[in-house]
Amino acid sequence: MPESTALLTDRYELTMLDAAVRDGTANRRCVFELFGRRLPGGRRFGVVAGTGRLLSLLRDFRFGEDELRFLRDERVVDAATLRLLEQYRFTGTITGYREGELYFPGSPVLTVEGTFAEAVILETLALSVLNYDSAVATAAARMSIAAGSRPLAEMGSRRTSEQAAVAAARAAFIAGFGATSNLEAGRRFGIPTMGTAAHAWTLLHDTEEDAFRAQIAALGVDTTLLIDTYDIDRGVETAVRVAGPGLGGVRIDSGDLPVVAAHVRDRLDALGAPRTRITVTSDLDEYALAALAASPVDAYGVGTSLVTGSGSPTAQMVYKLVARQDSAGTWIPVAKASAEKATTGGRKSAFRTLSGGVATSELIRVADGFDTPHGSDHPDARALQTVLVDHGDIDTAFEGSEGVSAARAHHIAARAELPSRALGLSRSDPAIPTVYAAG
Amino acid sequence: MPESTALLTDRYELTMLDAAVRDGTANRRCVFELFGRRLPGGRRFGVVAGTGRLLSLLRDFRFGEDELRFLRDERVVDAATLRLLEQYRFTGTITGYREGELYFPGSPVLTVEGTFAEAVILETLALSVLNYDSAVATAAARMSIAAGSRPLAEMGSRRTSEQAAVAAARAAFIAGFGATSNLEAGRRFGIPTMGTAAHAWTLLHDTEEDAFRAQIAALGVDTTLLIDTYDIDRGVETAVRVAGPGLGGVRIDSGDLPVVAAHVRDRLDALGAPRTRITVTSDLDEYALAALAASPVDAYGVGTSLVTGSGSPTAQMVYKLVARQDSAGTWIPVAKASAEKATTGGRKSAFRTLSGGVATSELIRVADGFDTPHGSDHPDARALQTVLVDHGDIDTAFEGSEGVSAARAHHIAARAELPSRALGLSRSDPAIPTVYAAG
Repeated sequence: MPESTALLTDRYELTMLDAAVRDGTANRRCVFELFGRRLPGGRRFGVVAGTGRLLSLLRDFRFGEDELRFLRDERVVDAATLRLLEQYRFTGTITGYREGELYFPGSPVLTVEGTFAEAVILETLALSVLNYDSAVATAAARMSIAAGSRPLAEMGSRRTSEQAAVAAARAAFIAGFGATSNLEAGRRFGIPTMGTAAHAWTLLHDTEEDAFRAQIAALGVDTTLLIDTYDIDRGVETAVRVAGPGLGGVRIDSGDLPVVAAHVRDRLDALGAPRTRITVTSDLDEYALAALAASPVDAYGVGTSLVTGSGSPTAQMVYKLVARQDSAGTWIPVAKASAEKATTGGRKSAFRTLSGGVATSELIRVADGFDTPHGSDHPDARALQTVLVDHGDIDTAFEGSEGVSAARAHHIAARAELPSRALGLSRSDPAIPTVYAAG
Repeated sequence: MPESTALLTDRYELTMLDAAVRDGTANRRCVFELFGRRLPGGRRFGVVAGTGRLLSLLRDFRFGEDELRFLRDERVVDAATLRLLEQYRFTGTITGYREGELYFPGSPVLTVEGTFAEAVILETLALSVLNYDSAVATAAARMSIAAGSRPLAEMGSRRTSEQAAVAAARAAFIAGFGATSNLEAGRRFGIPTMGTAAHAWTLLHDTEEDAFRAQIAALGVDTTLLIDTYDIDRGVETAVRVAGPGLGGVRIDSGDLPVVAAHVRDRLDALGAPRTRITVTSDLDEYALAALAASPVDAYGVGTSLVTGSGSPTAQMVYKLVARQDSAGTWIPVAKASAEKATTGGRKSAFRTLSGGVATSELIRVADGFDTPHGSDHPDARALQTVLVDHGDIDTAFEGSEGVSAARAHHIAARAELPSRALGLSRSDPAIPTVYAAG
């Protein structure tokens, strides 16, 4: 049985549950929404990612013997709550934006409906997954725009926590990358994996030529040789001499890339290898990619800046109670009024309005209570929410490789609706305004 | 059996291994070192964290049926290499800095000795763990300095990937935090957990007073009440009226904290609750903590900035081959010469030199080949490396709760040696210079 995910949770979710069991509010029906107040880093749009992973983690969100023993020993909850947790299964309904969809400030990315007891304790897990994965996907989409038609590979596993690395590879693939170096992401999610050799390969051998010959013997002449371990000119010369003009590619991992790439292209052409591709991989982010647009580069590998969200390592989304029943069963919209952190009460429905196929606004209709608000009333609008979990039944179509493929396709379609100003890289307001309307 | 960690690895580690099996270099003995070229973010020191986690993950680094099938189906390696991987067990030796130790540019935080085959494929996993955990621990140490004697709790699980959250809680505890909100970190590593209630708790109830009464009934009068859901003055008044003057604490999660904290302190004192503690938790980082030093605050909760490394989300350490045998079995120091990424060949030994108990330099002695360099030759120096894995035998003392306690204690001792200029928060050179000497 897979490891339980139930303790990937802040303690206060369980102390609240415990207190609610005592005072009889645990079964009040509630609506929680997960959303971002703003787009961090002055981004023009956000990309939703993590949904499919969250659904899989929700399957394993249960309190077994080990989890219950810990909660009892630590006195987190009392005996009555332990009995309730022992039976825990999420029986509510979750709707949300499709994975790969764009989002804007206030977009109800996820809506969780259920009893207070079953919905409140999903807060930490839902936010952990969506905040990291969406931060990476948002950075990836910007890099994908900057790279244009040139292929992008994700190679940042070493610069983020070991399991986050798998999530990052997945999020990047959804938002436009073509491959990853991470083998586990290949296994779990069917993402193409890539990679040939590091500097250690060259250093292991008595000469660079020995290293290149051995790599070609193992991986074929179409492989990519790393040419900057010693002297890059000699590296190029040795590579073409050993592999012949059919050499697949060379990789450059250091130096002033526009200058070095142009120089290496000249050398390859002069050596009779005009079809040998150039891959560059040194400290790239979306700005560096944009600066390389006119350079003779054929492919990119991006690591650190991708897996750390290129300056915005979390999407900073929050999970807030927006409506609940009172003791008589009447639905009440609720919101906090804290300075700078005020929220809008009431369940939300979301639509992207379009004009001639181009997005014009994020339209959010707010219901008074629990009822789903009406449609958009807009002649050309796309409903953004779909059912992910129906009364406890998780839709498997969003999980695994299948979910990733669907999300990647959905992202392409959603991005195609963006107005051209959304494609700029500089800090800005969101590309389309969020418009609120009564339900 | 726990899940294998072997595919948390970049594909190129295995393609290099595959090529090395073919050309006979796979069994060349090698020394790899893991180190940072610089301290990101202009930090004055770094804190090593993750070592104990890495050792546990190394136990599960093996290629079972599932892993081998994936590598065969994806044609990552050939049949001979698959047979070798099936038998894989790391039989080499790993030395390194103790967890909780400080490090500086060039410090050999981890040294892995073994065949090329067994050592090269640990690169990605070792870097993933050390880079994230050390980034968080380094930020945590700065926050701990800024907080002075006031207790610090880690509450950032929702702002980093779900398993990274557990690692972050652990790293923060090692570097001076006193507790975490993350229950899994409590279970796995024995870290004290904390937390009482969120805004959702207040919003669930018909009135703030109902919420406070129910929380006190469940958690006792010593609990901490969150007072800023609606109007903070009314929140304080209600809290003291419901709990009495023995109320344990109030939490403030919004607003201009120095102003609000002073105001709330005045209100509490006026209401006859001078011993009620004030905890603040809104978007804190080390600079905000320093700015609150003169405010009447009793405890802090830190989230986002901690788990994202406060602007430096990765320690940017690298894993480099520094020495290897040639075909005759002679040890050769090796180093790459790439622009701005050059490395120093040869196995390193590291010492912290001291004067009157205060650290004066990071002394690194470089051997010509494999041999361990000599001692420090310095009258007052502390050797920084210890054996973590001895010919494949993992020292269990560094793992689990025991390892975390030892690391936390070691960090306190190591930090006490720092010169006072290390305690500043602004961008700077490292607090002590790294000095290289021949072995």
